[in-house]
Amino acid sequence: MNDVSLTKTEMLMNSLRDRIASRALGPGDRMPSIRRFARTMGVSPSTVVEAYDRLAAEGIIHARRGSGFYVTGRNLPPMKVAEMGATRPRNVDPFWVSRQSLDPRPGALQPGCGWLPENWMPHNELRKGLRALAKSGEAVLTNYAGAHGSLALRQYLLGRFAEENLPAAPEQVMLTASASQAMDLICRLLLQPGDTVLVDDPGYFNFHALLQAHRVRLVGVPYTPDGPDLDAFEVILTDNTARLYLTNSALHNPTGATISPQVAYRLLTLAGAHDLTIVEDDTFADLEPDPSPRLAVLDGLNRVLKIGGFSKTLSASIRCGYIAGGADWIDALVDLQVATSFGGPSPVAAELLAGVLSGGSYRKHLVEIRGRLSSARKSAAARLAPLGITPWTQPRGGFYLWCRFPEGIDTGEVAKHCAQENVILAPGNVFSPSQSAASFMRFNVAQMADKRVLHVLENAMAAR
Amino acid sequence: MNDVSLTKTEMLMNSLRDRIASRALGPGDRMPSIRRFARTMGVSPSTVVEAYDRLAAEGIIHARRGSGFYVTGRNLPPMKVAEMGATRPRNVDPFWVSRQSLDPRPGALQPGCGWLPENWMPHNELRKGLRALAKSGEAVLTNYAGAHGSLALRQYLLGRFAEENLPAAPEQVMLTASASQAMDLICRLLLQPGDTVLVDDPGYFNFHALLQAHRVRLVGVPYTPDGPDLDAFEVILTDNTARLYLTNSALHNPTGATISPQVAYRLLTLAGAHDLTIVEDDTFADLEPDPSPRLAVLDGLNRVLKIGGFSKTLSASIRCGYIAGGADWIDALVDLQVATSFGGPSPVAAELLAGVLSGGSYRKHLVEIRGRLSSARKSAAARLAPLGITPWTQPRGGFYLWCRFPEGIDTGEVAKHCAQENVILAPGNVFSPSQSAASFMRFNVAQMADKRVLHVLENAMAAR
Repeated sequence: MNDVSLTKTEMLMNSLRDRIASRALGPGDRMPSIRRFARTMGVSPSTVVEAYDRLAAEGIIHARRGSGFYVTGRNLPPMKVAEMGATRPRNVDPFWVSRQSLDPRPGALQPGCGWLPENWMPHNELRKGLRALAKSGEAVLTNYAGAHGSLALRQYLLGRFAEENLPAAPEQVMLTASASQAMDLICRLLLQPGDTVLVDDPGYFNFHALLQAHRVRLVGVPYTPDGPDLDAFEVILTDNTARLYLTNSALHNPTGATISPQVAYRLLTLAGAHDLTIVEDDTFADLEPDPSPRLAVLDGLNRVLKIGGFSKTLSASIRCGYIAGGADWIDALVDLQVATSFGGPSPVAAELLAGVLSGGSYRKHLVEIRGRLSSARKSAAARLAPLGITPWTQPRGGFYLWCRFPEGIDTGEVAKHCAQENVILAPGNVFSPSQSAASFMRFNVAQMADKRVLHVLENAMAAR
Repeated sequence: MNDVSLTKTEMLMNSLRDRIASRALGPGDRMPSIRRFARTMGVSPSTVVEAYDRLAAEGIIHARRGSGFYVTGRNLPPMKVAEMGATRPRNVDPFWVSRQSLDPRPGALQPGCGWLPENWMPHNELRKGLRALAKSGEAVLTNYAGAHGSLALRQYLLGRFAEENLPAAPEQVMLTASASQAMDLICRLLLQPGDTVLVDDPGYFNFHALLQAHRVRLVGVPYTPDGPDLDAFEVILTDNTARLYLTNSALHNPTGATISPQVAYRLLTLAGAHDLTIVEDDTFADLEPDPSPRLAVLDGLNRVLKIGGFSKTLSASIRCGYIAGGADWIDALVDLQVATSFGGPSPVAAELLAGVLSGGSYRKHLVEIRGRLSSARKSAAARLAPLGITPWTQPRGGFYLWCRFPEGIDTGEVAKHCAQENVILAPGNVFSPSQSAASFMRFNVAQMADKRVLHVLENAMAAR
């Protein structure tokens, strides 16, 4: 009996430690009243008293006579980002997918990851680039770059933007350590804790984790095969003072959908009426078979900031991203990057990228992987169909296929089963702030060649 | 008359926009009363009324009947980090030094910068490393690293730590994009806006800018030639609930001083009594002639987090830093890095570093630059002496010389003069939260070979 009550106290203490670590209870906050908390947790008031007394002995909370217990702000357990504001079960947690994809067990298959297999990448060009770099001047090898980052790579980007009918000046483009860090800098500049940010539902899970780290309020906008649902968007904007909207216009992650010109135009009009800043993540642009509408282009980098990177088509080992936007914003973002990281990507890495991107064979490489992806998409859809798994839309390009599972199947459960067999999947709710995508799954069609993927998936669906 | 009043209104509007941009006036804050503000600014109340009306028309502020004007939080101009909480004149602003050092005009001399000249760096080893990398496996060239970063580089670091008598497990070390970003991640994990952080006065200016970006309260601890002034430290800890103390134990930036064993021990005891976490920045470690006391070693990575990088002795073009600390903290920091940057340094860059660092010639390179620095230090001191500029302490190593100027000279003014002649200096108050170092200057002895440095400096001192 004594053992059981001890366990309950410890469970309660752990739960409270978690709430304090996640800052759900911040320094100075009053702890829940003993009677009410006992009722909520289904324990006796004496168990709560014991837990509070022991946490007070650890210095985490302290009693004020006649007024209850308060969080001290000392001896704080470290904040676990994964727990910040997260109500998700750990199995469909964004960090579950990221960490398992980045640190797979040997032999893991990764149809849930967000990149191409290594043998799809342009190795010969990278090797050639490294050899060329070995012969470059001393400054490139050892010095910091300018605060905006490698001029060669920025000039390449300006050329690409011009091709897209997006004129921009050199001072409107800066390099960052990654596309994620580009988003992170923008959040630091424009957001304050408690601000409202609109994201696509479903949308890229790691951006949701990033926004949670900024302690902002995420509001999901339902996503349609033509872009965000603008009727819902308008209602949300009317009810909320939103500061920022983050989206992929082309080859949206996870659905692979692409915004239509009509939605793009109306979206910008709405954003103008509500003074909303838009971040357009163009990470998948080079996988498009031909150009589609871009918010940044229509808007001319006025209220739209464009971000992107090179990890999807060139190398994830050369970390580099960029931001294009109004010159004032870029200037402030450069200051912020100097303060927080003293610069963006490795200059030596940026020079390597500039060399490979400007070389003639990069476009050929793109044509080749687009062709391979088109076949892989068809093949994956054909192999998933017999399991009753069907694409929600037919993407124009890219490596994602967002699929609906048969009625009654929870893809979070399926992913958990498959993880035990060392097949790492990306279940729908990881992408959904409203947790309304339990019957969806994002497949990376380039990572499904191994027959074991379908085999393990089928077994997991049967095992439920 | 009309023109003049228009100009005054616009000046007022610009000043108010700045205060709103810097969040000195945050969303929801009440604007100063018209009568009081007019008196403060030396303008007529009608000018203030006009400025408020026009800012209201722009949506930046709004009137509440009978209660005054309030900041709306909409149409916010972007926040300028340089302005956050800064009361410094722009000429001794940390960003002034960083941005001028990173983006120098052609022909600039940089005795104020924080790095060695390019021709001091180990180019042959870097070129050899790049050629070896060109032959490495596909995964290294194109894939993400594990979430903690390159295993090869972490193993090298663990070996170095073991030599320093600091045993650590692989999961206690993570790579970051830079030493600054290491500090940034730690701030994000451990700090909340308004927290108190102790820094050395003088101390590294860019860390002050970084901490200001986190909106924490900086309290400067006076620095002595043996480390922080512990009597002052104790008084500060008694008066403040401080969360973090950030310092360099060895070859402190900007003074070049090194902590004594007695100060190190007593400092840790104080930190323990006040539950203070310490970040020890070991960036200059490899420039030491022989090892000096380390807080991280004494403490065994319990309440001390150790950070560092490779830009001072190997290459600033290969951006990479690290954090060593308790495994729980590192685990949370890795999550945070995945969320905010989806990884640390370029894996390809980390492999390059690991190769060069593990190669036999890196230690020889260190012996060589230590010798060159020792001569350069003596030579710089000898050339500064005739101007009445004297070292505050004799550093054991490194490239900094923290010097006192003759009575009555403001080094900020001297730096401004010299900048016009394209000689970029680092005046003392850039390093001083209390702005008490106006008669000091930090010299980089490795960047003073050009005779023009002393010549321009002498002229600037005469010109005041």
